[in-house]
Amino acid sequence: MVARAASVRRPRPVVLLTDFGAASAYPGIVRAVIASREPRVPVIDLSHGVAFGAILEGAAVLASAWDYLPGNAVVVAVVDPGVGSSRRIVVAQQGRRHLLAPDNGLATGILTRREPTEVRELRRADLELPCRSATFHGRDVFAPVAAALAGGAVRFPELGPRMARPIRIEGLVASREGQRLHGLVVMADVFGNLVTNLRAEDLAPASGPLRISVGRHRFDRIVRTYSEVPIGKALVYPGSSGHLEIAVRDGDARTKLGIAVGTPVTVVGIRKARTTR
Amino acid sequence: MVARAASVRRPRPVVLLTDFGAASAYPGIVRAVIASREPRVPVIDLSHGVAFGAILEGAAVLASAWDYLPGNAVVVAVVDPGVGSSRRIVVAQQGRRHLLAPDNGLATGILTRREPTEVRELRRADLELPCRSATFHGRDVFAPVAAALAGGAVRFPELGPRMARPIRIEGLVASREGQRLHGLVVMADVFGNLVTNLRAEDLAPASGPLRISVGRHRFDRIVRTYSEVPIGKALVYPGSSGHLEIAVRDGDARTKLGIAVGTPVTVVGIRKARTTR
Amino acid sequence: MVARAASVRRPRPVVLLTDFGAASAYPGIVRAVIASREPRVPVIDLSHGVAFGAILEGAAVLASAWDYLPGNAVVVAVVDPGVGSSRRIVVAQQGRRHLLAPDNGLATGILTRREPTEVRELRRADLELPCRSATFHGRDVFAPVAAALAGGAVRFPELGPRMARPIRIEGLVASREGQRLHGLVVMADVFGNLVTNLRAEDLAPASGPLRISVGRHRFDRIVRTYSEVPIGKALVYPGSSGHLEIAVRDGDARTKLGIAVGTPVTVVGIRKARTTR
Repeated sequence: MVARAASVRRPRPVVLLTDFGAASAYPGIVRAVIASREPRVPVIDLSHGVAFGAILEGAAVLASAWDYLPGNAVVVAVVDPGVGSSRRIVVAQQGRRHLLAPDNGLATGILTRREPTEVRELRRADLELPCRSATFHGRDVFAPVAAALAGGAVRFPELGPRMARPIRIEGLVASREGQRLHGLVVMADVFGNLVTNLRAEDLAPASGPLRISVGRHRFDRIVRTYSEVPIGKALVYPGSSGHLEIAVRDGDARTKLGIAVGTPVTVVGIRKARTTR
Repeated sequence: MVARAASVRRPRPVVLLTDFGAASAYPGIVRAVIASREPRVPVIDLSHGVAFGAILEGAAVLASAWDYLPGNAVVVAVVDPGVGSSRRIVVAQQGRRHLLAPDNGLATGILTRREPTEVRELRRADLELPCRSATFHGRDVFAPVAAALAGGAVRFPELGPRMARPIRIEGLVASREGQRLHGLVVMADVFGNLVTNLRAEDLAPASGPLRISVGRHRFDRIVRTYSEVPIGKALVYPGSSGHLEIAVRDGDARTKLGIAVGTPVTVVGIRKARTTR
Repeated sequence: MVARAASVRRPRPVVLLTDFGAASAYPGIVRAVIASREPRVPVIDLSHGVAFGAILEGAAVLASAWDYLPGNAVVVAVVDPGVGSSRRIVVAQQGRRHLLAPDNGLATGILTRREPTEVRELRRADLELPCRSATFHGRDVFAPVAAALAGGAVRFPELGPRMARPIRIEGLVASREGQRLHGLVVMADVFGNLVTNLRAEDLAPASGPLRISVGRHRFDRIVRTYSEVPIGKALVYPGSSGHLEIAVRDGDARTKLGIAVGTPVTVVGIRKARTTR
């Protein structure tokens, strides 16, 4: 009876985030492998448009999307410039969600959340495709393992031994020092808007005005919408991801302001927090 | 018994049309929110490649795709440069289909069809995500409302009061004056082909040849396929959307001919119609 | 009883490969037509990013993805510059898979495999959409026929008469002459890496070193990963598709080396094979 109940259980969705490019066939082959192994598992493409090899951007996209993903999702994140080397693969469990990612910092934003998180190192060559290539682990390793986990053919504790120190990117999680908040520009979106890792909700001003520095640029207020500044002017505003963003109205902030991903951002004058993260 | 029958009913598909960009994570987050709320609702991406903020193009894509969408679809169209302002959200019912869109003209081609159409203004903050952002209503408003409608958790008349005068774009629907037909270039496709809003079936010649004007360009015949003109030459032909299109064989008509979206198009010499639309 | 069993059978997935462009609405309209006809049929987008009209590239993508597709897939490949002319449409059966493609060589890699393959010419106008356009057979012909086949409304032998000589691209399948292997560059991926049709497993060296020629470029070894050469240098390696690829580390091989799709590739010094393909 229990087995039967399990067999009719709704399969869990697999969520894909990669730097394979929306125009390439690589995401489609990953989807095909999952469908071949577990036809009933739905696949949700979060994005295949992370800039090639941009671990910091991938980590930021993953962190800001996490709360919107189905509560029982098997999330596969592949931005993996070290594929073919001896880099490990992380499998994390947080609530009813699981995350598979190369151990290169991509999982930082998830591993540093407050929720209880268990981390294992993937060591199940038996679940991989028979002929593993040196360069396409998305197809040969991540897809079949995710399908097995989502379809119920394997359970999380069976994927490998506990992992002690998965790699974390310094600075991906913003830090606070009294009335100062320090962070990074973590990505540019398709419009050239620059997204930081400073959470909008942490930016209530203490008493005077806020001062915001992004590289050599200075701002003295946070606006709500583009329409509050003239066309062509730069603005700082709480973005849709819940993080502070820098944009140029009707323009491309990355090229117009010359700000690269990884540039430090500091906000001075914020109200001291009761809880920090 | 009725409740049970409803609960096993096949969920309706949600169709998405946005200007978010195929390479961004925004469409994926919208898909994830729908799957989180209603895991059984299938999502069909019509396109996320409408040019950013291009309401006229979005309206034209929506209008020409409408007849091909599943008869029971919940269609979500988001080209929404006014997001964060006080613009309203339209919900329309036509046959068994529903459409959600910002009230900015995007729905023009649907609202002006002959079929009986009921229009309401969305006012159901209770269905939205808890923390609505000022800039990403696709995720915070459209996705959860569409999921609720497609999954059967809410019915159309419950979404808000009837709406008197939704915004319509002048000229999006072509007009006829005796033997003349007036319209617009409504979009350029990825190949640079220019799509008009003139329906091919309205273009039967009266007796002499047709004369076609597109901005300062003149054409004196409509061909059926590219192969009827030499490489590099411009042609006018009935496109796959059922509308007149302008192309350059093996070239990009938009840049080669210098024709912008919104350019007027006139055809002279057509047979007088018994019915106009 | 049999009819009932058939009616509850899981529908087969439809796999789509086209040159429509990931940003256009054409793939979405194809998906919508399939969902309109057969709501339970899952659609897997293999890719819509084949270069426009690039039959050789489409054929190579299809051939290298084939083994990863679900065993019961209905595969639809549309790279169809001859649409609107009198070109025929091929339907092939191989194992439990079916393939629909224009008869222009796109199916070469599948039709030349060793498995028993039956080929028919599609002649079922009754299954098409009512108003077939001259330019969008993806929507009007391929989508409804694939839906009917995947949903079980029609069976393969009913699609048309047997077809004698479907078009095949010369050279798409590599050829061997003693210790030499001849082939082609069949595509460039989104990173500018050049993919050949030489299978890595056929490249074991006889005794001395291998000599590899790609157009006017010469290489004297095959490496395993990018990290084995300095940044900016060209390398030849077994790619993730199982075929030999040419890349430039952290660069774009197509533009940096000036190698076009269709360029001949020869490897000299390989071990003589017991079986050729």
